[in-house]
Amino acid sequence: MADERPRVNAARLRDFSARALEELGVPPEDAAITARMLVACDLRGVESHGVAHLRMFYANRIRRGLINLHPRPKFYSRTPAVAVMDADNGLGFVSGYRAMNEAIRRAAETGAGFVAVRNSTHFGAGAYYAMMALEHDMIGLAMTNAVPIVVSPDSAVPVVGTNPLAVAVPAGRRPPFVLDMATSAVAGGKVEIAVRSGITRIPEGWLVDGEGKPVTDLSQRARGRGGFVPLGGRRETGAYKGFGLGLLVDILCGVLSGATASLLRQEPPEGRGNYGDHFFGALRVDSFIPVADFKRAMDEMIDAIEALPTVPGAGKVSIPGIYEAAIVQERERNGIPLHPKVVEDLKTLAEELGLEYDL
Amino acid sequence: MADERPRVNAARLRDFSARALEELGVPPEDAAITARMLVACDLRGVESHGVAHLRMFYANRIRRGLINLHPRPKFYSRTPAVAVMDADNGLGFVSGYRAMNEAIRRAAETGAGFVAVRNSTHFGAGAYYAMMALEHDMIGLAMTNAVPIVVSPDSAVPVVGTNPLAVAVPAGRRPPFVLDMATSAVAGGKVEIAVRSGITRIPEGWLVDGEGKPVTDLSQRARGRGGFVPLGGRRETGAYKGFGLGLLVDILCGVLSGATASLLRQEPPEGRGNYGDHFFGALRVDSFIPVADFKRAMDEMIDAIEALPTVPGAGKVSIPGIYEAAIVQERERNGIPLHPKVVEDLKTLAEELGLEYDL
Repeated sequence: MADERPRVNAARLRDFSARALEELGVPPEDAAITARMLVACDLRGVESHGVAHLRMFYANRIRRGLINLHPRPKFYSRTPAVAVMDADNGLGFVSGYRAMNEAIRRAAETGAGFVAVRNSTHFGAGAYYAMMALEHDMIGLAMTNAVPIVVSPDSAVPVVGTNPLAVAVPAGRRPPFVLDMATSAVAGGKVEIAVRSGITRIPEGWLVDGEGKPVTDLSQRARGRGGFVPLGGRRETGAYKGFGLGLLVDILCGVLSGATASLLRQEPPEGRGNYGDHFFGALRVDSFIPVADFKRAMDEMIDAIEALPTVPGAGKVSIPGIYEAAIVQERERNGIPLHPKVVEDLKTLAEELGLEYDL
Repeated sequence: MADERPRVNAARLRDFSARALEELGVPPEDAAITARMLVACDLRGVESHGVAHLRMFYANRIRRGLINLHPRPKFYSRTPAVAVMDADNGLGFVSGYRAMNEAIRRAAETGAGFVAVRNSTHFGAGAYYAMMALEHDMIGLAMTNAVPIVVSPDSAVPVVGTNPLAVAVPAGRRPPFVLDMATSAVAGGKVEIAVRSGITRIPEGWLVDGEGKPVTDLSQRARGRGGFVPLGGRRETGAYKGFGLGLLVDILCGVLSGATASLLRQEPPEGRGNYGDHFFGALRVDSFIPVADFKRAMDEMIDAIEALPTVPGAGKVSIPGIYEAAIVQERERNGIPLHPKVVEDLKTLAEELGLEYDL
C-alpha cells in the first residue's frame, strides 16, 4: 500500500523545525540538536515522536515556561565508568544528547560507560541516543521513565510509565540492530496516532479498565482507573515480565539518578508529565572481541534469520532496525509523508512564530 | 491452597546434591557451588531449575562426557570494565559463578563491570548470579542464550532460545527487586512442569504452529515447525519486542563473547542444547548516588506500589522478587516441597551412585 500523504524534504523539515525552536528561544546549537532528533524519528517511520510533537508538545511546554532553555547541567562522578547528570530541567533532547556523549566518552576509556540523568524533560524517542554509539563501534543503550499510565497485572491503577528502552548494536554491511520499545504492550504514541486518525476501536490487549478487563473502545476509557497493559498481556502470558521491565527502567532512570520512582513524584498539575529521568549506556565492542569479527558475526546472523521460512503473509523474517533502515533510505530519497493534521499544525506554528512555511 | 507435597530440608538437599555431583566426578568446591545454586532455585519456588534437573539433565550430560569437569577457563581483557571468559566447556554454574565474580570485581574498581562468556554450558537460572551483586550493594545482571525454540512473529521455525535475562537491585528493609524472565511468553520450564504433571492443555499464547496459529494441546505439537511465542504474544500486542529482547540476549551472550548466534551454531546431535554462552554485569550503586539514599528510595517505591488498589482477586500488587523472598523464608522454615517424580528421580540417582538417600 503506497503512502499517498504529501511528502516533505527531510533537510527542509529539519531546517524549519530548528528555526521554529530558535524562535521559541532555544539557543541555536540546542535547536539544531533537537530538530535533528525529531526529524530522525519521522525518517525512521516513528511518526509518534517526530515533528507531530513539535507544536502541541514541545512548543507548548516551552511557552508555558516548563522547560529551562538555558540550563546549567552538572555532572557528578565517583568512578571512571559512571556519572550522574543533573539536567537542570533543560530540554530533554539536549540533556540526553550530552549525557549519551558522556557515556560514550567513558566507555572509550574503560570499556563501559553509564550516565543516569535526573531533572530532565521529555527526550523524544530512545533510538537516536542508542544509535549515537554506533559510529564509535559501541553498543548503545537509552531508557527514560515517564508519567505512570501502565498498570501491573494486579493493580487497578497505573504504576509505571510506558518506560521505553532502546538498544543499538553495530553490524557490518547490514544495517544495525536497533530495538526501541515501550515496556507496555503498545506505545503511548500508537494510541495517540489512533486518536489523531479518529479511530476509537483498538485491539484487545492494549488497555484495561480498573478491573483488569480489556478496553477495546477508546471512547469508553475511564480516567484514573485501569490503563495501558504491560508487555506480555495477561498474567499467564507474562504480563509481570513487561511490568518488571517497566519498573526496572523506572529504577535505573528515576531511583538510581537520585530523582525518585515516578509513582512518588510530586508534580504541579500544570507540569504533569513534563519530566523525564533517563539512563544511558555504552559498551565498547572491541573491549570484548575485535570489531571486524563482531560485525561479520552480526551480518551472518542477520542474513541467516532473514533466510528462514516465514508464516503465511510475512514476506521475510524482520529484525529490529532493519525495516526502519529501509524506511530511512526511502524517505531520504522521496521525502517524509506527513499526516494532514501534522501539516496543519506546522502551518499554525509558522504563523504563530511569524515564520515562512516553506515545506 | 496449601502445598501438600512432602517437604525436604534445604541444607540436607544441598548436601545430598553436592555429594551426588562429587560422586559424578565434579570437584568438591564446584559441586558445592552447583548444589547451592540448584537448591536456591527450589527455595525461591523456581522448581523448573532446581534439583528436578539434577539427574536427567546435569548428571546425564556429565555421564555422557558433554561437560568438562576440569576446565581451564581463560579470561581476556582489553579494558578495565570488561572481560571475556572462555569457559572451556565447564559446568555452567561454576563458569557463571566465576564470571559474575569477575564482573563484580571490575565494577568495584570502575563502577561498572561486564563479562561475556563463551564455551560454557547450561547455567541454571539467572537470578542467582544477578543476586550475587546484592551483597556488594551493586545491581546485578545475568543472561544466557539457549537452543532456539522461540519463533519470531514472522517465522515458521524457531529463531532464538527462551534466552532469559535476570536483574537484581538491592533495597533496604524490603527484599531486593529481582526480575528473572524468559524473553518468551512462557519459560521452557513451565511447559516442562506441565508435561511432568501430565497436563496437555496449555493456555493460548504459549506456543504456535508453523503457520503462526495457537497450539493449546501439547500432544498436537509438531517438531521442527512453530515453537514458543515471544513475550508480547501477537504482532499487534508487541511480539516483536519480546523477539527483539531474545535476539539482544543472543547478541550479548553469543556474538559479543566471540561464540556465535545460536541459530548458526553447529552442534553434534548428541550434545544439542548443551551449550550456553552468558553475559554478566554489575553496576556499583554508590558510583551513582549514596547507597543509603538509594535503598531508602527503593523501600519507599516498593511500599507505595504495594499500597495501590488492586484488581478483583489480587491480594496486593506484587513486585518481582518480593513474592519469591517470602517463599524462601517459608521454605527455609518448613522445607522444600518436591514433586513425587522428582523424589523418585533423586532416589534413583542415589541408587545409581551408591549414595544414601537421607532426605
